Amino acid sequence: MHAYRTHNCAALRTENVGETVRLSGWIHRKRDHGGVLFADLRDHYGLTQVVVDEDSPALAVLDGLRVESVVTIDGEVKARSEGTVNANLPTGGIEVYARSVTVQSRADELPMPVAGEQEYPEEIRLKNRFLDLRRDSVHANIMLRSNVIASLRRRMVDQGFTEIQTPILSASSPEGARDFLVPSRMHNGKFYALPQAPQMFKQLLMVSGFDRYFQIAPCFRDEDLRADRSLEFYQLDLEMSFVTQDDVFAALEPVLGGVFEEFSGGKTVTPSGSFPRIPYREAMLKYGSDKPDLRNPLIISDVSQHFEKSGFGLFETIVGSGGIVRVIPAPATHEKSRKFFDDMNNWARGEGFAGLGYVTRKGGEFGGPIAKNHGPELMAQLYDELGLGENDGLFFAAGKEKDVIKLAGAARTRVAEELGLIEQGCFKFCWIVDFPMFEYDEDAKKVDFSHNPFSMPQGEMEALETQDPLDILAWQYDIVCNGYELSSGAIRNHRPDIMYKAFEIAGYSLADVDANFSGMINAFKYGAPPHGGSAPGIDRIVMLLADEPNIREVIAFPLNQKGEDLMMGAPSTVSAAQLKELAIRIVEPPKPVTAAKPAEIG
Amino acid sequence: MHAYRTHNCAALRTENVGETVRLSGWIHRKRDHGGVLFADLRDHYGLTQVVVDEDSPALAVLDGLRVESVVTIDGEVKARSEGTVNANLPTGGIEVYARSVTVQSRADELPMPVAGEQEYPEEIRLKNRFLDLRRDSVHANIMLRSNVIASLRRRMVDQGFTEIQTPILSASSPEGARDFLVPSRMHNGKFYALPQAPQMFKQLLMVSGFDRYFQIAPCFRDEDLRADRSLEFYQLDLEMSFVTQDDVFAALEPVLGGVFEEFSGGKTVTPSGSFPRIPYREAMLKYGSDKPDLRNPLIISDVSQHFEKSGFGLFETIVGSGGIVRVIPAPATHEKSRKFFDDMNNWARGEGFAGLGYVTRKGGEFGGPIAKNHGPELMAQLYDELGLGENDGLFFAAGKEKDVIKLAGAARTRVAEELGLIEQGCFKFCWIVDFPMFEYDEDAKKVDFSHNPFSMPQGEMEALETQDPLDILAWQYDIVCNGYELSSGAIRNHRPDIMYKAFEIAGYSLADVDANFSGMINAFKYGAPPHGGSAPGIDRIVMLLADEPNIREVIAFPLNQKGEDLMMGAPSTVSAAQLKELAIRIVEPPKPVTAAKPAEIG
Repeated sequence: MHAYRTHNCAALRTENVGETVRLSGWIHRKRDHGGVLFADLRDHYGLTQVVVDEDSPALAVLDGLRVESVVTIDGEVKARSEGTVNANLPTGGIEVYARSVTVQSRADELPMPVAGEQEYPEEIRLKNRFLDLRRDSVHANIMLRSNVIASLRRRMVDQGFTEIQTPILSASSPEGARDFLVPSRMHNGKFYALPQAPQMFKQLLMVSGFDRYFQIAPCFRDEDLRADRSLEFYQLDLEMSFVTQDDVFAALEPVLGGVFEEFSGGKTVTPSGSFPRIPYREAMLKYGSDKPDLRNPLIISDVSQHFEKSGFGLFETIVGSGGIVRVIPAPATHEKSRKFFDDMNNWARGEGFAGLGYVTRKGGEFGGPIAKNHGPELMAQLYDELGLGENDGLFFAAGKEKDVIKLAGAARTRVAEELGLIEQGCFKFCWIVDFPMFEYDEDAKKVDFSHNPFSMPQGEMEALETQDPLDILAWQYDIVCNGYELSSGAIRNHRPDIMYKAFEIAGYSLADVDANFSGMINAFKYGAPPHGGSAPGIDRIVMLLADEPNIREVIAFPLNQKGEDLMMGAPSTVSAAQLKELAIRIVEPPKPVTAAKPAEIG
Repeated sequence: MHAYRTHNCAALRTENVGETVRLSGWIHRKRDHGGVLFADLRDHYGLTQVVVDEDSPALAVLDGLRVESVVTIDGEVKARSEGTVNANLPTGGIEVYARSVTVQSRADELPMPVAGEQEYPEEIRLKNRFLDLRRDSVHANIMLRSNVIASLRRRMVDQGFTEIQTPILSASSPEGARDFLVPSRMHNGKFYALPQAPQMFKQLLMVSGFDRYFQIAPCFRDEDLRADRSLEFYQLDLEMSFVTQDDVFAALEPVLGGVFEEFSGGKTVTPSGSFPRIPYREAMLKYGSDKPDLRNPLIISDVSQHFEKSGFGLFETIVGSGGIVRVIPAPATHEKSRKFFDDMNNWARGEGFAGLGYVTRKGGEFGGPIAKNHGPELMAQLYDELGLGENDGLFFAAGKEKDVIKLAGAARTRVAEELGLIEQGCFKFCWIVDFPMFEYDEDAKKVDFSHNPFSMPQGEMEALETQDPLDILAWQYDIVCNGYELSSGAIRNHRPDIMYKAFEIAGYSLADVDANFSGMINAFKYGAPPHGGSAPGIDRIVMLLADEPNIREVIAFPLNQKGEDLMMGAPSTVSAAQLKELAIRIVEPPKPVTAAKPAEIG
């Protein structure tokens, strides 16, 4: 017989009744029923109920152990009596009568319990992560993460992608966030940087002729932490050669759609091959965001021209001076009180906006100052155009375009939430496409790149030479699910001549470009294929599938919000000898001015 | 038609003759045959021959391009004439007549060629890795690596292992090598360490209840570089709960054996399930090494007792004063000249040993001073015992045990190499088991751990309490292939009481243990399962399969021997602002005393 187990704790069924078995695991719970002890034995796979009779030598041993001790049980499988069968447990038809027990590891008194799903302060959980990870929900999240990643890999390999590891000790990259630095012992005074993303390397792999690359890639950004951000995180990094935007979409939709379908737990998923493609400008108009949550049925409309001449002077003035007016429908709000509308207005003010106007409608009759001043006929005409009905309210965001987009987007979300309109039980994907290549930087009073300078402009060199820069679109795209951006991506600019020209338009000289991006540009001069890719965030995908709002719930050993590992004690001080080898010295903070000691005063 | 290709460069066959196709790739080679241009178009998948007729508009374009430029070719598939069919090329039955060509990327003059397999200085290769990676052999190595890793993963998952990512920004670990440090911006004066191995985390995962963990784990050691060592490297990190040593072997043999069979290219592999298990002490005797190359048929024997009383006074003296004598057979060396034997002796002296004695034998007649002094009868008796024949020579290593083991092991390798005895075309695996738990440290005059303090001693607490420490064996094992150690591993000591006792024997107090290993010991106090694992080196596995002597040949973007990325320029200097955020300062090396300038002398 095996030293520790003949079966795991999820294996035994009524077919095994009568067998002599050996099980090992943690004592999950103990219940003393008057001389008979019931213990749930737990391992990675599940739970089995162990029964210890009054006359079993195991009784005294088990009785003296705390829960979470690890034991090996020898015993016999018996069928549970009819009333005690547990249909919710795979092993619920049987129980194991313990003949003997071997203690593998005795548990001290626990700093936090494992059984049950009580909420515990994160500090205690992370300090005792080895206990926290034993809890059902946390264990399930980590297994989900592992299964999601395995599935992503399988789907990528099935599509002919090759996984290649890129360096972690690397050079500083122009990703824009702050690098983690690693002092070099062999080259004192110099530093490696941990990759913010393997962007340069994956493009160099394309230049090297590897046609379809991917990697479950660890990435590092030394940025302040939020609920959805970790210092180290993983992305499904991918890049493809000789492709158009359509090819990238065709490769990625079955991977993401497939993984979501596999792990959605019954939620519907936008079918692969039919992810909507929404141009950036349309998204900003209709959803007030380039990360639209398509579970929200509300659509924003621009109604500026309706107020060019209007009895409602405020809007007329705004539109007359170059501003805009946009509306968010509030369907079937005829029974809502005035307070509902006023609360929305107050919320908008609280968010720093001028306010959120509104029109109410009940049985066809309009209410509120906008309707009154604009006039019921014009308002009815507007409603008809918008396809609104007799009992629908309407919210108004008016002002400068930039502010209005932001307010309308936020109001769209809030109105839908307040009215319970967000569709549940679904994952809705879309692509945001046609990002503008350039934008006008109001502060610097110049044209600059709006997003990624390394994307290929649509129309390539000809567009750069003939079009108004602000009209040029880029082959750049985001993938969005339920309002969360999973990834941006692009068809890259692989042509040095087009790269120099694009940078010239944004006010950078050839020398600037060479100074900052020589590695990539140099490689492009020796035969580079057209290529493009994306890099969906894996932690985010698992968070969505696990329905967890905090990234630390889907990482086995996360740092806390302050970037500390409370269990292992990282970061920590290091020895003088280590610093000497690295030729660095710690700069002590300036000492605060010391107050005289009390003893010296009196 | 797709913008770039209807087929890849390895796809077309005679079945495609007559089709209009579009191909994209790099111009691998060009040959001008009197007005007709032949070009090999290359991509990730293969080569296709493109023909450009005199009257094709593509001629002038292709003619003006350097090799390694990237082009898209539109043309028609034609069968090659009988004499020009290339049976070595999958596409060798056809060629594509180019109608038009689109230049995707024009190549400048190359710093190194891609076609052909000339050797180039590593510095040029690594500085232009994006070109170097296009070469057949390097491309094949990287693809092999990717396929090996994918296969390892598949085999681990098939056996019920779960892949879990452990932290890269972590705490300093007691692995023994030098850590890479990462200064913390949020906690000035403190440092993260990059993991030398996820040892602590994988054991904590076992304590957390994850039954079978693995990870293709990046590891980092700031050690000086050798041909087989890189600053960052990958291991197949694995750990299992509720297992004995046999279980670990049973899990790992099919994974390693299977991967080697899959990628050995026809070489034979020790069948999974039958890897020999060689106790450490036997390995040191028979092979003079704990990394025996079993392709070498020679076996070392101890013949000390034969020389306790011998006419050969030197050996008698050595054995009499506690030394030993060991022999390495040199089979069928009757035709070898005296010089062959003397050269071996000189080699041994050159390696710092006292010398390698020998006996020659030809047709049963012994030669050399050892045989002469020891006497032919005793020598013949020794030969009989060793099973040696009439034409076999014998080398002798004599002296202190430690030196003799080393010399005998090295001589065994050298003799076999010189005589061409190393079996080719095979991968021979073995386990080295039963490592001693403790050894006597001659310098410190005390008992210390011989290898890993965290392994479980065989016999557990009872052994520690009752046996001579130097007799205690550990549940520790190495896996060796063709003389290379792929991994060490162990059944871990999961019991704090046994851990404290083992450290006590090695002279460490309870406080010492708690101070250095509190994270792990603390976790073991709340219910830890018996567990064990291993961590075969992936770079080493790929090196063996690719038959490459240098680790940099199996890494896509390796650092050079000085730890530099010549292509991306890492490590590099960083800005004062970055150092300030991290609160560190670079210590300038002391300035060398400056010699007076020549101008000032005259």
